[in-house]
Amino acid sequence: MSDPVVTLLSDFGNRDGFVGILKGVLLGICPSARTIDLSHEIAPQDVMEGALVLSAAVDHFPVGTVHLAIVDPGVGTDRRALLIETEAFTLVGPDNGLLSLAAARSPLRKIVHLDEPRWFAPSPSATFHGRDVFAPVAAHRANGVPPEQLGSIVEDYARVTIPAVRRVDDGIEGQILYVDRFGNLVCNIARSDLTASSGTQMTVRLGDVTIAQISATYGAVREGKPVAVWNSWDRLEIAVRNGSAVRQLRARSGDRVQLKARR
Amino acid sequence: MSDPVVTLLSDFGNRDGFVGILKGVLLGICPSARTIDLSHEIAPQDVMEGALVLSAAVDHFPVGTVHLAIVDPGVGTDRRALLIETEAFTLVGPDNGLLSLAAARSPLRKIVHLDEPRWFAPSPSATFHGRDVFAPVAAHRANGVPPEQLGSIVEDYARVTIPAVRRVDDGIEGQILYVDRFGNLVCNIARSDLTASSGTQMTVRLGDVTIAQISATYGAVREGKPVAVWNSWDRLEIAVRNGSAVRQLRARSGDRVQLKARR
Amino acid sequence: MSDPVVTLLSDFGNRDGFVGILKGVLLGICPSARTIDLSHEIAPQDVMEGALVLSAAVDHFPVGTVHLAIVDPGVGTDRRALLIETEAFTLVGPDNGLLSLAAARSPLRKIVHLDEPRWFAPSPSATFHGRDVFAPVAAHRANGVPPEQLGSIVEDYARVTIPAVRRVDDGIEGQILYVDRFGNLVCNIARSDLTASSGTQMTVRLGDVTIAQISATYGAVREGKPVAVWNSWDRLEIAVRNGSAVRQLRARSGDRVQLKARR
Repeated sequence: MSDPVVTLLSDFGNRDGFVGILKGVLLGICPSARTIDLSHEIAPQDVMEGALVLSAAVDHFPVGTVHLAIVDPGVGTDRRALLIETEAFTLVGPDNGLLSLAAARSPLRKIVHLDEPRWFAPSPSATFHGRDVFAPVAAHRANGVPPEQLGSIVEDYARVTIPAVRRVDDGIEGQILYVDRFGNLVCNIARSDLTASSGTQMTVRLGDVTIAQISATYGAVREGKPVAVWNSWDRLEIAVRNGSAVRQLRARSGDRVQLKARR
Repeated sequence: MSDPVVTLLSDFGNRDGFVGILKGVLLGICPSARTIDLSHEIAPQDVMEGALVLSAAVDHFPVGTVHLAIVDPGVGTDRRALLIETEAFTLVGPDNGLLSLAAARSPLRKIVHLDEPRWFAPSPSATFHGRDVFAPVAAHRANGVPPEQLGSIVEDYARVTIPAVRRVDDGIEGQILYVDRFGNLVCNIARSDLTASSGTQMTVRLGDVTIAQISATYGAVREGKPVAVWNSWDRLEIAVRNGSAVRQLRARSGDRVQLKARR
Repeated sequence: MSDPVVTLLSDFGNRDGFVGILKGVLLGICPSARTIDLSHEIAPQDVMEGALVLSAAVDHFPVGTVHLAIVDPGVGTDRRALLIETEAFTLVGPDNGLLSLAAARSPLRKIVHLDEPRWFAPSPSATFHGRDVFAPVAAHRANGVPPEQLGSIVEDYARVTIPAVRRVDDGIEGQILYVDRFGNLVCNIARSDLTASSGTQMTVRLGDVTIAQISATYGAVREGKPVAVWNSWDRLEIAVRNGSAVRQLRARSGDRVQLKARR
């Protein structure tokens, strides 16, 4: 049988040793775990950013993977600690919406409120539940402990909401949702927002920049030119070939993007 | 039996490939090693910062873990290469104080001067002992080679000193020791510095900011307000809820912090 | 038998989750793979920087390691996807020169154009071949699939060229090739460029700074002073002891460096 896979996502950064400590705790309980970092550079306390990055990753891991995610501005308050079990994977983290976009990507099995201190570190701190609550529970789950033993079954979990796109006369209106490391601008417009009537020839507009079509690849335009593609998350993305769209187009998260049928 | 765990801490950064090379060397000698990063973003040549991050981590790893730590401004000079064996773990690195705070966290067994070239890479470089000396020795230790075969037993190791707190009339005076990724200010005042007579109601003062009490969690105050907690290292920490204390309070390492009994 | 080792190098950064996704794909196909990061902080689209970091690492990994490298400004265009099999290791990545410096470090066995979609993800995207083409192929190779089954044998691969050094009357003229995380300046002058007649006493000149000799270690000079060494890549490196040469000497990539016999 394969070693269990446990991924980690957080806003802890890679400087202070917090992530290494999580892995030490994981390996202490589940010595065969393969620990994989998704990201620890989520902007501090940015639950939406964490939710987006997590949800883009979960489809690409082996069935049974445990995803430990911690962006937790409410640590130590009465926000719940949660485990969400789906057919394809387990999510462990705070109940603040962080897990919600990923949870929607596989049929739900169980939602568990992590209220059983016997699975935690002895005398857990109030400031580092990652180490004292979430990592121990994730490791026990990776060891095969069934979800219902790890806490109480509950009915629902907190959600973050991706701003909805707006259908207008001749197209779709959305906004910039996420800016990646290359400066590419990822929009809330998903490929699945297109309808049969959308037509295949679309222009993209952001501020005073118009992009004449959606291309198959970044390489479809000359260097330094803006290009629109359906990206690896299946969302509309505005890039600059071999450049940074966020810098060159002076755009930012929340800016309006229009996708229009070409006349 | 579990695979051996080897952690890595350095000031190498994650850009130049140095850390990957260390792991290649480790796996070449000890193919079953699970390698875990503690941090490679220690400020260049900042031995104290490395010592603090290392010492905060070692308690959270399985017994028998080998911790390889390299912040080594004196590489190639006559500073010794060292292995420190404790009951709970092995430390490998330069003898410049980097290992000393961690070493104090478990009963000492042996201090070994790594002076046996047969455990090194053939013709080691003078500029990258991490690759040619420390990683090979750590891997051999992870393979089970006993400490005393890896070099000569010696009596002592170099130490860094955390500035002592000062007891004053109505409290304790300390300073900021470390600023973490969130901008939280970690002080040299440890929870164990409190005495029975300290009282439980304390105020914290940093510059012209007074915090009325030590809270259990960051969430005990409103967003944007300063808060004092005993952190996950069991040290006094000054934070700003969902903000950055280092920016908002314009503080820095070395600034004086006063902890006073409330009148 | 040891678990297969797969290294990863890219310009993806560590923030957006792309690297974690690669590892999820790798583990889905080859569950026993040990995945090791070389670097994901290669400057965006900087093929030369990636080629240098990769080539400095490959000698230090166990025989049979698969190195997956992705710096791919031409993703989705007609640049080929390539696997290069050498006696010591396998390279997988785009055919844009990224693999070429590493390939030269071990006798060549086969060059394979990855043109067999059955080894790819179903319906691969045009923007993320790392996930959909390169990682799956690397994983199948790590599983033991022979190179010639993974695509068509071809004759050559694209190369990047390290600027040649120039031999002058009394020495060698080169340039700065790479600046590492410490601000050390790595030159294109390799130790192997020295000839018997070079003499052992050399001075190094960069702009208006003259360094009187090549030292064995950074510690051979006082703090804050410039020092020249043969570094761990066996290249001439100009550093400042416990400082940053790139800042202190106001140098940059491409600046001329002269190595002269001492008179």
